Amino acid sequence: MKVAFIGMGTMGAPMALNILKAGHDVTVHNRTREREVPVAEAGAKRAASPKEAAAGSEIIITCVSDTPDVEAIILGEAGVYEGAEKGSIVIDMSTISPTATRRMAEKLGEKGVQMLDAPVSGGSEGAQKGTLSIMVGGDEDALKRAEPVLQAMGSITYLGPVGAGQMTKAINQIVVAGTYWSVAEGIALGLKAGLDMEKVVQAVGGGAATSWAMLNRSGNMINNQYPLGFKVQLHRKDLNIALNVARELGVTLPVAAYVEQVETGLITRGHGDEDISVIARSVREASGIDD
Amino acid sequence: MKVAFIGMGTMGAPMALNILKAGHDVTVHNRTREREVPVAEAGAKRAASPKEAAAGSEIIITCVSDTPDVEAIILGEAGVYEGAEKGSIVIDMSTISPTATRRMAEKLGEKGVQMLDAPVSGGSEGAQKGTLSIMVGGDEDALKRAEPVLQAMGSITYLGPVGAGQMTKAINQIVVAGTYWSVAEGIALGLKAGLDMEKVVQAVGGGAATSWAMLNRSGNMINNQYPLGFKVQLHRKDLNIALNVARELGVTLPVAAYVEQVETGLITRGHGDEDISVIARSVREASGIDD
Repeated sequence: MKVAFIGMGTMGAPMALNILKAGHDVTVHNRTREREVPVAEAGAKRAASPKEAAAGSEIIITCVSDTPDVEAIILGEAGVYEGAEKGSIVIDMSTISPTATRRMAEKLGEKGVQMLDAPVSGGSEGAQKGTLSIMVGGDEDALKRAEPVLQAMGSITYLGPVGAGQMTKAINQIVVAGTYWSVAEGIALGLKAGLDMEKVVQAVGGGAATSWAMLNRSGNMINNQYPLGFKVQLHRKDLNIALNVARELGVTLPVAAYVEQVETGLITRGHGDEDISVIARSVREASGIDD
Repeated sequence: MKVAFIGMGTMGAPMALNILKAGHDVTVHNRTREREVPVAEAGAKRAASPKEAAAGSEIIITCVSDTPDVEAIILGEAGVYEGAEKGSIVIDMSTISPTATRRMAEKLGEKGVQMLDAPVSGGSEGAQKGTLSIMVGGDEDALKRAEPVLQAMGSITYLGPVGAGQMTKAINQIVVAGTYWSVAEGIALGLKAGLDMEKVVQAVGGGAATSWAMLNRSGNMINNQYPLGFKVQLHRKDLNIALNVARELGVTLPVAAYVEQVETGLITRGHGDEDISVIARSVREASGIDD
């Protein structure tokens, strides 16, 4: 298929490469143009603007940082909206506001362009290996047409109408917040009590307390070292999206809101580029573990 | 071996039966004496008091509800302390205070009696099947001698000196609190957004947000039905033990403390006998999901 891919970041570039490898005809664009070069060298065409990338493409993928970036790419000057042709499908794979997603889908719909929201989890490793978990909202027939392209990047779960993918990603980040935090609390108590924490994780990691976070990130928390992973500043951005949509719907998320505040403090103090497990630093410090 | 087992509750009775089945010579006692009958019918002797049960036993197991119960059984009138012989081993398999455990171990030590703390996880099902996870603190040689008896009830993890088993169980319950709660927050948002929650759990249950709670208890939270499971009033008791020992050590556990307050409210309103996943009811109600 003819695919435009806009956003050549840590996620976008390897995702576009996987689409190329699957045999599709790919045109890339990135605001900082030189980022297009590695993917162009692998066989992609380059476009000077989102509009130019969108023109003539059947599938137009966006994968950037935040809601305003996607809005600028799609609705801004020389944006996707200007270039996209009737019958084409815009797939936003960024993690952004479900509400803004629905607004953009409506606007594109006026032009006969369908929109799928398809945020991912699985990190840069999943992007490189083509093993992302892709959470899709939007029209089911549009998804069927887009499947050959999405499958090149990972496995697809269809969740419902436009916005359902973003809403599911928001849920994912809410649950990540509290689950990581609860592991951090448990580890702080064990460290202060002088326990052998490897044995503790072994003892509790097989039962009702276990989680991906406990099995994969407790080591970071015990060693007080937080290599990437998933940057806490990106998780904070995602949590804010989740808290905003929860506010719109009238849902109270006290623990997610608390963890967002902790993350804000850590980012302020220069830890924004560390893995999200760095929230354990806050429990350690409050409990005087490293004094 | 000659084993005394004190406490014929939902956990103790099937645990004592498994020790009997493993070929040991078991004497049982329970404050409400008729509870001894089923295990006596399976071949156990009955004793009129903890003291009488302890006399002549190599291993003396206690498995009751809370710290004061264990203190009464061990140090009270006609208690284990009066009957236990030099060289015998007391194993407390209740979930109680690590600090009180260390005090009792010291007192028993004056008489030449060793004490292991060995709280369990795995619930009544694990007690019946002999598949409990047993978290042991205390002298390692004493554990070696007690192993043939403990192995009849489940798998053993040795965690360090007296109290380390109880401390590990406290950590388990802290992590359970926040992990279950975070799943409840995520589900509340999804329900309010009108998502198909089975699909959502499928989408997020394979990645960084996943946990035992998500895979095994999200169904309860979605259906707003909380069959046992593990009673929320017992979890609240355990969380209080954890919060008290954390306070003693100067460790701050804001989310565990928050969940304890939620559980207190639910118990007040008659939900104490439901599974701990009932904490989702609090998020649902605060967010008007069932209005």
